[in-house]
Amino acid sequence: MTMTKKIIVETSARHIHLSDADLETLFGKGYQLTNKKNLSQPGQFACEEKVTVVGAKGEQKMSVLGPTRKATQVELSLTDARALGLQAAIRESGDIEGTAGCKLVGPAGEVEISCGVIAAKRHIHMTPADAVEFGVTDKQIVKVEIETEGRSLIFGDVVCRVSENYATAMHIDTDESNAAGCGREVYGTIIK
Amino acid sequence: MTMTKKIIVETSARHIHLSDADLETLFGKGYQLTNKKNLSQPGQFACEEKVTVVGAKGEQKMSVLGPTRKATQVELSLTDARALGLQAAIRESGDIEGTAGCKLVGPAGEVEISCGVIAAKRHIHMTPADAVEFGVTDKQIVKVEIETEGRSLIFGDVVCRVSENYATAMHIDTDESNAAGCGREVYGTIIK
Repeated sequence: MTMTKKIIVETSARHIHLSDADLETLFGKGYQLTNKKNLSQPGQFACEEKVTVVGAKGEQKMSVLGPTRKATQVELSLTDARALGLQAAIRESGDIEGTAGCKLVGPAGEVEISCGVIAAKRHIHMTPADAVEFGVTDKQIVKVEIETEGRSLIFGDVVCRVSENYATAMHIDTDESNAAGCGREVYGTIIK
Repeated sequence: MTMTKKIIVETSARHIHLSDADLETLFGKGYQLTNKKNLSQPGQFACEEKVTVVGAKGEQKMSVLGPTRKATQVELSLTDARALGLQAAIRESGDIEGTAGCKLVGPAGEVEISCGVIAAKRHIHMTPADAVEFGVTDKQIVKVEIETEGRSLIFGDVVCRVSENYATAMHIDTDESNAAGCGREVYGTIIK
């Protein structure tokens, strides 16, 4: 009997990545992020710090994820974006050129970012060993089927990202998670 | 050449249906709903009236849909439910037995409903003629594929509901619409 190996599906809630410069503007000179909880991806962590994201129609406090990055980036769901009055392009993390910006407010100051507001393109982080086992390669687009009580679906346009620095997991946003009726721990099947 | 007929996919935002009794409690004795805009389903209309839905974690004004029904029902997305601190079962409209309740506040009074908070099970309203053309029957479960830029997906667990009183259209909620990156006008393909 052949068992199809399944992949864990994790839901990413709205969050912010900050550049060193924006961290200092928002929280003060020399400020360092406080690791609250390590995330499944090696080296990534949720921080105690929160930043207020301001849009045309509203504002929302969002958690900062560490460590700092080259560029500040706000990742939210399209539901969040609509509520806040922000435009969010569907992009892979880091691919922010030409996206919309917004205002960020921290305890020590404000920043107006000119771009960086995105809804994350659904993706799978994968180790090279798991990529071999699943039979996929870096940047390959696959489908992933999730079976739940009453809201089963098959996600298309899922990009595989393969690196020694990753732990194998699929990431979707809260709209996608709720559309599939995902509970706490969900596994999907890769379809090529 | 065979062309596959596609079905229009409409997004239902959060809304409330009221019973006659609850309408009177919330808006006053003898109150009548005000038709603001006819909906695609014959006889259904969006109303000027709004009701505040109160959960453990927050509250949200929602539009009332008319006409009044046998039982009051709150239809929201799982994202909404989480933000408000409400439990929402995935149910077909009208199938509210054993679901959670909430508090409703109107200009003339309040109601505590003991059940009726649901996230709508994705479904297709269909005329008998279109059901023949699509080759489906009442209560049949199908899949519907939606192709969009970067967020294509295939919805499973879609229930077909066939009646002379319907206009043919698929209904999904805002989480599902955003998960698929649906824009203003989207069409899906039924897969059996």
